[in-house]
Amino acid sequence: MVAALPLVLSLGDPAGVGPELIAAAWARRKEEGLAPFFAMGGARLIAAAAATRGLDVPIERIASPAQAAEVFPRALPVLGDLDGPYTPGEPNREGAALALASLSLAARLTVEGEAGAIVTAPIHKARLAEVGFVHPGQTEFVAAAAGVAAEDAVMMLAGPTLRTVPLTVHTSLASVPSLITPELVERRSAITAAALTRDFGLPSPRLAIAALNPHAGEEGRMGDEEGRLIEPGIAALRARGIDATGPHPADALFAERARATFDVAICMYHDQALIPLKALDFDHGVNVTLGLPIIRTSPDHGTAFAIAGRNIADAGATIAAIRMAGDCAARRAEATILA
Amino acid sequence: MVAALPLVLSLGDPAGVGPELIAAAWARRKEEGLAPFFAMGGARLIAAAAATRGLDVPIERIASPAQAAEVFPRALPVLGDLDGPYTPGEPNREGAALALASLSLAARLTVEGEAGAIVTAPIHKARLAEVGFVHPGQTEFVAAAAGVAAEDAVMMLAGPTLRTVPLTVHTSLASVPSLITPELVERRSAITAAALTRDFGLPSPRLAIAALNPHAGEEGRMGDEEGRLIEPGIAALRARGIDATGPHPADALFAERARATFDVAICMYHDQALIPLKALDFDHGVNVTLGLPIIRTSPDHGTAFAIAGRNIADAGATIAAIRMAGDCAARRAEATILA
Repeated sequence: MVAALPLVLSLGDPAGVGPELIAAAWARRKEEGLAPFFAMGGARLIAAAAATRGLDVPIERIASPAQAAEVFPRALPVLGDLDGPYTPGEPNREGAALALASLSLAARLTVEGEAGAIVTAPIHKARLAEVGFVHPGQTEFVAAAAGVAAEDAVMMLAGPTLRTVPLTVHTSLASVPSLITPELVERRSAITAAALTRDFGLPSPRLAIAALNPHAGEEGRMGDEEGRLIEPGIAALRARGIDATGPHPADALFAERARATFDVAICMYHDQALIPLKALDFDHGVNVTLGLPIIRTSPDHGTAFAIAGRNIADAGATIAAIRMAGDCAARRAEATILA
Repeated sequence: MVAALPLVLSLGDPAGVGPELIAAAWARRKEEGLAPFFAMGGARLIAAAAATRGLDVPIERIASPAQAAEVFPRALPVLGDLDGPYTPGEPNREGAALALASLSLAARLTVEGEAGAIVTAPIHKARLAEVGFVHPGQTEFVAAAAGVAAEDAVMMLAGPTLRTVPLTVHTSLASVPSLITPELVERRSAITAAALTRDFGLPSPRLAIAALNPHAGEEGRMGDEEGRLIEPGIAALRARGIDATGPHPADALFAERARATFDVAICMYHDQALIPLKALDFDHGVNVTLGLPIIRTSPDHGTAFAIAGRNIADAGATIAAIRMAGDCAARRAEATILA
């Protein structure tokens, strides 16, 4: 492995579980074998959050990302003076503004090549909107920061035994059939395939494309979107040499034996992608943005205001997000050296 | 436990995995602790199917269900002379007619109180339609045999750690939003609650009603069916004293911790109910029909023509269906004695 740049972690909403999970991840850096990372601001509030979990997390301020790797073994490196009060469970405007500043700076550092990847802690979208956040979510924010159109930033959810990509995301179920097009299937699947090769080390990723209707429509008896929209998209992918199969009846696609036959399931809607992932392993889901010039991962959970500061929140997803970011960054660093 | 009547098993399509799984279930009757059952016909073809699995299954013809319990420990009881050739993987009209005859007779025996429950093996709907089967599936057939309107026969899927009821089933995803009504939510949930009390021994079953839209619509931002259709249904259920909660965002509803908080999830569409069930445990899913005067269960898989006769098919779901039928029948027998 070639030494990659350190990873940068945004704080997330300081009233949520972000800061305590950053501390918890650092505390387990050795047994989890995590690559060096630093937090974008929040030295005082991470220290306070660590205390609520009874963790001994020494914190060291750094002046540049280049110092992170040296500090990381003995202390959690925190870049810069950005900080605020720790108010677990009690979100406010100041905290939202802090979360936005940490996210903005972390994204910029990553785009400018000072960090190997960005791992974003959870924000509360409605609260961030109150302080000027104009994006539907962090995925679109990071895409914009990286100069990529939002429709070309592909959200992939990854658990220990399953990866899924929802082609449509935050939209009503009734609107889903009208949003599926052969072009959407082709474009987002192709972006996914390229990212699995570049960042996940899969030379020929196997894509299983889910059906929209029960039993994949049973030859048009329960909906015709499979033949009309999904199959042409799959044909286009195969013409490009991508190993895409389907449309597969979605109910059987996530059974244990079926999961072994593909590297990613391309899903038609939010819950089709999220139900199996969370049913199989709620605590280790990672949300990764594909199709960007930078690497971005995130734990697949929200701010969890209700349990913040109570030493309950599971750090599994944060650790998994850091590990995935580190693995992807190492792969890119290696490819750069070899090129 | 009061001794219940024996269970009757229909053969299913003889080209499918039904006959071999009946034999496999009998062979494991002791370690699985299965209640006495008999097959409705098929003595020769079950013997042939047992041979493909290398099973030693003696078969004894019986002239009435009353003989089943005495025969069961030493041989698989088969009622009557109904029989046909064993042609695994090669469905034909004769086999379809045999499947239909076995199903019809088994349903009648159960309705007439000669069998404690009916466990149906898988049929192939299109093939049965060719020989005069006019129902969409076995659920509707059994409902009609029991004198219940199809819309009041509720399909519940049950695995080792999860029960789900799809409110809509074999219909396109696009049609689902227009099929959900407060009355549908209320009626099918109430039937489910009553059956869980009567047949599953849950005095006050906890019903979790799933949302239709991602994040339960986020207060109408991604679809309004939750407030307009599902919440009124839940309110009506609660007014009747039924412990119904929701609408719950479906993606998180099937996570391990969430599953511990309810006895059944009422789902809005086929894949919402089936994806988590099959993801969690593909080989032990049982399809049970609620709301009938009789008890009917079925393994939640199809004929699997492609693997019939090859000693591959897993008997887990058939065994689970027999066990569930036996448990429910014992509960009804006990209730009858106590009444």
